Amino acid sequence: MVYTKINLKDKLGIFSDYWVPRIVSKFNDYHIKLVKVKSEFVLHNHPETDELFLILEGSLEILFRDGKVKLNEGEMFVVPKGVEHKPVAKMECHILLIEPVGTINTGKIVDTLTAKDNIWI
Amino acid sequence: MVYTKINLKDKLGIFSDYWVPRIVSKFNDYHIKLVKVKSEFVLHNHPETDELFLILEGSLEILFRDGKVKLNEGEMFVVPKGVEHKPVAKMECHILLIEPVGTINTGKIVDTLTAKDNIWI
Repeated sequence: MVYTKINLKDKLGIFSDYWVPRIVSKFNDYHIKLVKVKSEFVLHNHPETDELFLILEGSLEILFRDGKVKLNEGEMFVVPKGVEHKPVAKMECHILLIEPVGTINTGKIVDTLTAKDNIWI
Repeated sequence: MVYTKINLKDKLGIFSDYWVPRIVSKFNDYHIKLVKVKSEFVLHNHPETDELFLILEGSLEILFRDGKVKLNEGEMFVVPKGVEHKPVAKMECHILLIEPVGTINTGKIVDTLTAKDNIWI
């Protein structure tokens, strides 16, 4: 059988738009996603799930109601389920996300930044 | 509130033994683990879960009954549940693993490489 690995840099080279997560793999009931971000995202939460952020390139601040965390390349953070968070990147930042299949990027918020489809690459 | 990020390199600096995964974070019912490996692991499988490998440093070959995959830094692979696999690293390799809480590193095989405890760092 042919077993196909995933090269994250190669996958990141396929797209350039911001805040539109791409699915690169499935792991049980979870999707592994890559996303490029820049500027401010909408404050939102995921009532039903934690969300894992791993920074592959650049820096990301995640703002909470009562604090913030600044993540650099090689750093990760798990946003607990239900906790409102607003990702902000001054410069372009590349992120690996892990979320349950079907998770909407803006949670229950409907926004111009809401990604309608989950796109496999 | 204080939100604490996880720096993968810092965590990897805390331990040096091979094939003993350390837990660095919890994500829903999953553990995010770091492991350093070198030489050959035991052929095993996880009948109940997929297993995610992301290479942080070095190279890892995963041998299957009917093929293999060679992973370098920045590459990932999901071993499907139930598929027998044998990780092999000629040189030291650092890996991020994601597995359901309670997953044993050698599956149902009992071996000198079986990690008895899941250690948080």
